[in-house]
Amino acid sequence: MLINGQVGQSISIRDRGLLYGDGVFRTLRAQRGIALHQNLHLQKIQQDCAKLGIHCPALSHLEHELAGLLVQHPNAIIKLIITRGIAQRGYAASADGEPTHLWDVSELPVYPAQNYTLGIALRICELRLSQQPRLAGIKHLNRLENVLAANEPHAAKFAEGLLLDAQGNVIEAIRSNVFIVQSGVLLTPDLTQCGVAGVQRDRVIAYAAQHAMPLQIRTISLAEVLAADEVFLVNSVLGLWSVRECGNRHWHDFAMAQKLAALFEQERGL
Amino acid sequence: MLINGQVGQSISIRDRGLLYGDGVFRTLRAQRGIALHQNLHLQKIQQDCAKLGIHCPALSHLEHELAGLLVQHPNAIIKLIITRGIAQRGYAASADGEPTHLWDVSELPVYPAQNYTLGIALRICELRLSQQPRLAGIKHLNRLENVLAANEPHAAKFAEGLLLDAQGNVIEAIRSNVFIVQSGVLLTPDLTQCGVAGVQRDRVIAYAAQHAMPLQIRTISLAEVLAADEVFLVNSVLGLWSVRECGNRHWHDFAMAQKLAALFEQERGL
Repeated sequence: MLINGQVGQSISIRDRGLLYGDGVFRTLRAQRGIALHQNLHLQKIQQDCAKLGIHCPALSHLEHELAGLLVQHPNAIIKLIITRGIAQRGYAASADGEPTHLWDVSELPVYPAQNYTLGIALRICELRLSQQPRLAGIKHLNRLENVLAANEPHAAKFAEGLLLDAQGNVIEAIRSNVFIVQSGVLLTPDLTQCGVAGVQRDRVIAYAAQHAMPLQIRTISLAEVLAADEVFLVNSVLGLWSVRECGNRHWHDFAMAQKLAALFEQERGL
Repeated sequence: MLINGQVGQSISIRDRGLLYGDGVFRTLRAQRGIALHQNLHLQKIQQDCAKLGIHCPALSHLEHELAGLLVQHPNAIIKLIITRGIAQRGYAASADGEPTHLWDVSELPVYPAQNYTLGIALRICELRLSQQPRLAGIKHLNRLENVLAANEPHAAKFAEGLLLDAQGNVIEAIRSNVFIVQSGVLLTPDLTQCGVAGVQRDRVIAYAAQHAMPLQIRTISLAEVLAADEVFLVNSVLGLWSVRECGNRHWHDFAMAQKLAALFEQERGL
């Protein structure tokens, strides 16, 4: 673990990251000494810092630190957190505040192999996401909604949980982004009111554009998800999982997801 | 500063309080060795822990630690934070997780004397609070909305900022609760969809009940606030401030607020 460039494992109890969740993060998957999509992750965290008015350390500085970590931990999950730094008392930030940036390393998780072949069972969460356009899309440290959703009864029996907003539209899953296939068209929820815009979501969108595959970003109802030809989830740690079951619906054909999964799996070395 | 009973000033970067804002807090004002409304604060933090499923340390344990702090810091601001503790990776909490509880002490702030005599200028924040009934009322660590509101342009020129929800109803101020007086009736916003229910708000509500003063807790529009006979703010650090100015409206009569302020000021030793 590296905190503002120093080896350590703790931060001040006056850090605004703790006091207010006043910070952002990204989780990278490192394999054979390479942090997958490192550039996309670092760009995203820079953008998220800018949206919150947090001074992000220079890209070259982050790249340098990450390179050092990859030598020591070539196969690992590497999390980067950037907070607004130490607080004076009160919500207002001082203009000259120094951000805190830290890296944490943990072991690569092992998921059941069948998640990649047979797909997963997706639960519909009871919690409904709140709508806050000022925070939507940002991977910030205010994650109590995800915590509550992940701790709902029976959550442990399912690989993931689907999150809807108060209007009943599908936004994302607890720790991944959602895509559906409707008559050959890829769709993913609009995230201008809530949700986290992940790097892998961007990659699927970019891939579709490059290969002239029709893709829409728009409001998607739960009924549309349950009626879709395919449903799949993406995130930077797990890659891509097709959904084989949600509510009373079962899926058996994962053609489109498999096509995209080839992309993900190839570079993940699976 | 006291962290899980030990003197210190830092917590693990794997604490869920930092990673997810997965915790709650209370800010107490200590005067002459007494933490004002200590019992109310400790009851509230216990209730907030219960709502989030966080194991709260025993009341007697918290009281014992606080008593020790008050000997060293008889006049101070004392903040208590309780988090869900150290995380495994991921949003799901382990059932046997040990909470983190910590105390931080800072100096009593000095506010302009006229805030208590002439009232304050209240800004209307641009940010609109999101609605999340599962978190409403709880003083939790997901406070990015307050941070964004406190950092809006011109915020520093005003003593406080009024927060509305997406429907334009008044909920609270950035760090205080709001009351208005309408033809002799006290009103305060309903906090079942968003907002923090502070100890001083509870005290005003209890005082009104004890003295047979009519009081309503309900949806309150911005127009009602601007048309009110009086508007005042309460919190545990500042006590009670009347509003003398908000938008184009000016107030000069603070009769009801002064009656209640006598209560607050008496015990604050002003």
